[in-house]
Amino acid sequence: MKENKYDDQKFFEKYSQMTRSQKGLDGAGEWRELEKLLPDFRGKRVLDLGCGYGWHCIYAAKHGAKLVEGTDISKRMLEAAREKCRMEQVHFMQCAMEDLKYDKGSFDVVLSSLAFHYVRDFPALVENIRRWLTPGGAFVFSVEHPVFTAEGSQDWVYDDKGNILHFPVDRYYFEGERDAVFLGEHVVKYHRTLTTYVQTLLAEGFVLDALVEPQPPKDMMDLPGMADEMRRPMMLLVAATAAKK
Amino acid sequence: MKENKYDDQKFFEKYSQMTRSQKGLDGAGEWRELEKLLPDFRGKRVLDLGCGYGWHCIYAAKHGAKLVEGTDISKRMLEAAREKCRMEQVHFMQCAMEDLKYDKGSFDVVLSSLAFHYVRDFPALVENIRRWLTPGGAFVFSVEHPVFTAEGSQDWVYDDKGNILHFPVDRYYFEGERDAVFLGEHVVKYHRTLTTYVQTLLAEGFVLDALVEPQPPKDMMDLPGMADEMRRPMMLLVAATAAKK
Repeated sequence: MKENKYDDQKFFEKYSQMTRSQKGLDGAGEWRELEKLLPDFRGKRVLDLGCGYGWHCIYAAKHGAKLVEGTDISKRMLEAAREKCRMEQVHFMQCAMEDLKYDKGSFDVVLSSLAFHYVRDFPALVENIRRWLTPGGAFVFSVEHPVFTAEGSQDWVYDDKGNILHFPVDRYYFEGERDAVFLGEHVVKYHRTLTTYVQTLLAEGFVLDALVEPQPPKDMMDLPGMADEMRRPMMLLVAATAAKK
Repeated sequence: MKENKYDDQKFFEKYSQMTRSQKGLDGAGEWRELEKLLPDFRGKRVLDLGCGYGWHCIYAAKHGAKLVEGTDISKRMLEAAREKCRMEQVHFMQCAMEDLKYDKGSFDVVLSSLAFHYVRDFPALVENIRRWLTPGGAFVFSVEHPVFTAEGSQDWVYDDKGNILHFPVDRYYFEGERDAVFLGEHVVKYHRTLTTYVQTLLAEGFVLDALVEPQPPKDMMDLPGMADEMRRPMMLLVAATAAKK
């Protein structure tokens, strides 16, 4: 059963208060690094897996994509996306990404922002993505870093005065479900090793173009907690190209 | 000043007692995974950077390499290597890898096992390796994992009874020197992010073939501490090919 936490009223309201929800791409610490990895969208057919509010769909459309399909499991997220975006080349569809069906070669670009850590079977998904992409197509995604997902709590270790001591890594090679706390709510996430992320792509015939752990931008260091993000890697950005067979 | 810890009598003696020093490749937990990443050595010219006891040089020669050059900063390590290996196609040379000079295209394969975390300037080294390698040549190395090198102590966090709680990550994005404790001795190592390892290779024109965090082998789980190695990634194995320009 795929969890649909973003349709939980309380969770959704908390999420909608986050800087990244209010300000969009400019409010996301990793955006400037992710933007550098994106392909030229002009004339492209783009699929965004776990599109949420649709920020990346809007970006792709504004940068010349001829068709953008945004998919998400959450009805509430898509309602917000549809309100934000009324461009005729952008479509939104409610569906878990594991259940999507597309013909071979349907897209030139597949994007996903911070959604794959909710997916249980990554290899099966990548196999689909490879098939949906035309040869030479681009696959760019961000995901929570394996260091961040391994132990499970996703929280720092503190001393008895509440100061951060370090970030804990544990259970690294034990992949699978984690009961993470996000915005004070329990959310099921899936931990995978870096090896699994990279080797799965290579095994499916992708060429790795970039692997970036984004650092917090210097001009966001005054946001609460941001300076501490220099102490641990929280996200992983990956860009790959579907090899021409 | 490059540190030459392996010529320190006390450190060298402790190192020589390690399972990997006594049993060679079969005593190294990561060997079976590294072996899978090695190229066909038949007829190849091979450079091993930080060759230590020369185990990998011997392996390459036994698998058909026509020339193997093993280099190490440590005189003691090379003395042990020369005692072990008297094959005419294998040469050993005492030199810090940062100071090596070779002509363009001198080698078909460059190897390095657990030595790059002693090197301050990784991009400068990779630039050299790319030049020393013939187009299409193979570059395979192991290095201590960024998770293992980040905080610096390279030790677990324990509870007051001495049980392992977790492994600490800290200072992740602050690359550079760490005062690590290895075999009870202080050793200077250099922490780098995963991003730096991978992006440096890609920037120098390598194609990534594999990125593997080796798990402890099931049949070595009874060695002291080995089962705990399922809790953290300690090493990173990388295989790449020098792109044909």
